[in-house]
Amino acid sequence: MQLTILGNSSGGPFHGRHYTAQVLQVDNQVFLIDCGEGTQMQIFKYRVKVDACRQIFISHLHGDHVFGLIGLMTNWSHKKRSETLHIFSPPGLQELIETTIRVCGIRLTYKIEFQEVDATISVKVFENSKVEVWTIPLHHRSPTSGWLFREKTKTRNMRPEKIEEYNIPFDAIPAIKAGEGFELPDGRQVSNAELTLDPKPPASYAFCSDTAFFEPVIEMVRGVDLLYHEATFTNENTMEAEKFFHSTAAQAAEIARRAGVKRLILGHISGRYADTDQHLAEAKAVFEQVEIAEEGGRWEVAKTQ
Amino acid sequence: MQLTILGNSSGGPFHGRHYTAQVLQVDNQVFLIDCGEGTQMQIFKYRVKVDACRQIFISHLHGDHVFGLIGLMTNWSHKKRSETLHIFSPPGLQELIETTIRVCGIRLTYKIEFQEVDATISVKVFENSKVEVWTIPLHHRSPTSGWLFREKTKTRNMRPEKIEEYNIPFDAIPAIKAGEGFELPDGRQVSNAELTLDPKPPASYAFCSDTAFFEPVIEMVRGVDLLYHEATFTNENTMEAEKFFHSTAAQAAEIARRAGVKRLILGHISGRYADTDQHLAEAKAVFEQVEIAEEGGRWEVAKTQ
Repeated sequence: MQLTILGNSSGGPFHGRHYTAQVLQVDNQVFLIDCGEGTQMQIFKYRVKVDACRQIFISHLHGDHVFGLIGLMTNWSHKKRSETLHIFSPPGLQELIETTIRVCGIRLTYKIEFQEVDATISVKVFENSKVEVWTIPLHHRSPTSGWLFREKTKTRNMRPEKIEEYNIPFDAIPAIKAGEGFELPDGRQVSNAELTLDPKPPASYAFCSDTAFFEPVIEMVRGVDLLYHEATFTNENTMEAEKFFHSTAAQAAEIARRAGVKRLILGHISGRYADTDQHLAEAKAVFEQVEIAEEGGRWEVAKTQ
Repeated sequence: MQLTILGNSSGGPFHGRHYTAQVLQVDNQVFLIDCGEGTQMQIFKYRVKVDACRQIFISHLHGDHVFGLIGLMTNWSHKKRSETLHIFSPPGLQELIETTIRVCGIRLTYKIEFQEVDATISVKVFENSKVEVWTIPLHHRSPTSGWLFREKTKTRNMRPEKIEEYNIPFDAIPAIKAGEGFELPDGRQVSNAELTLDPKPPASYAFCSDTAFFEPVIEMVRGVDLLYHEATFTNENTMEAEKFFHSTAAQAAEIARRAGVKRLILGHISGRYADTDQHLAEAKAVFEQVEIAEEGGRWEVAKTQ
């Protein structure tokens, strides 16, 4: 898995920051998470390949997480996209997008499938051969869902030198990669352990924005390899965080620490802060493995043993 | 009048260009013309003061001219704006904005008044003490209106030394600025010509985007001090311009030449062009006083005698 952050701002395009959007790549599959205004510009700026995206996951319908979606969708039509786009979100987005398409006379060159999710429960909303995606109920002013991406267990890696040594036919390889041994023409058995190497263990990524400090999140994100958690405010604005259903950097770190995650990224920084030093310092006091979601930054999400 | 260009791109955020948006300042009044995605970022980048804006004029409902509006409106609410916002546009925008507000749960701190205009006729849609605004019917795939801003004739400028010389009371000055003479206590008349200087003559600005080459525009923009006309393509793509109801740079210059305008700005440049040299050269061959709408650029719009 590789995560690219396209925006880390809350509340305004201040200090060169942009609204929330992320691209998660799992092998050759591309998932887009949130799509604030200006996402298509950020995609172009950072040369991120998103045209292969088939699934978009929108956390909630506040503008800083969704107002860039219709522009990106329109651009895909200019490129004559034909593949169906699946959009997962809390309720309402279908009406918004369909009204915009009708009123603005947009002619999409591809189909859209909306899947509106219940943001109050944790359910698996998507899976394919590589990954499964679960909702993470969050606590915000409007129905808001985080997203948990879990890679599936991968097949074992064939040792190429063994193919030659035992003259293994091509059509026998899938079964060996799935864990079986191989029977030689003279009846001898070669064990799977001799023929294969362990695959990379499956990794996991959790996206949690926007939300107040919300204890149920801890169990949902337990042990993930990378957690993105919003950190709109610093400690001095803890009351304001509570009032507007946002989190402080220290609260995000508290979630990370109690959930035993491997690494934490902080984002959704309020425009009142010119830099993020205070966020980082306050989070580090609680949880050491923390970074700021710098725009254009890429994170390899690998299973940490 | 002062014009600030915030975006000059057509079809994509390419080569560092952004979608159409302009700010026209007339004395202390601020008007916004079109509002493509990313307008609020451009406003912040170029430090343009738009919070005093009371009237927005949207040419048509294609995304590159309107998808930044709801984000800007939301931001004004974050700043606790209280002044009513008047939005002029072809039909449909009210439904789009009201649906977005409802679905996304936006709580505006101010009122909106929509005035949907008939984009097939030329009418005066707004006037106040400083300026009047007329629609300019354009020829595009969807109903599209250009906008003509005409300053009103200004009051004459009082010569301060004459106030002292003739001991003119403060409350007599408005009548003198309006053109009257002044009667001295001994009955002698002082002529207005002695007391005042000519005001700056009223200036005019016409915005024409998006449109195919459309001859009726010529009469509408006759003699304006500054004309902005779209120039999506260069000569080699004249057929494509016609097909998609856009203009070439040479066609824009032809409108300017035949209308006898004083200066021309070209914008809405297609993303296929990495630079605008060809546009400028082809337009200059037809009309000398032409420039490219560089983003962040400011143009003083003064009456040219």
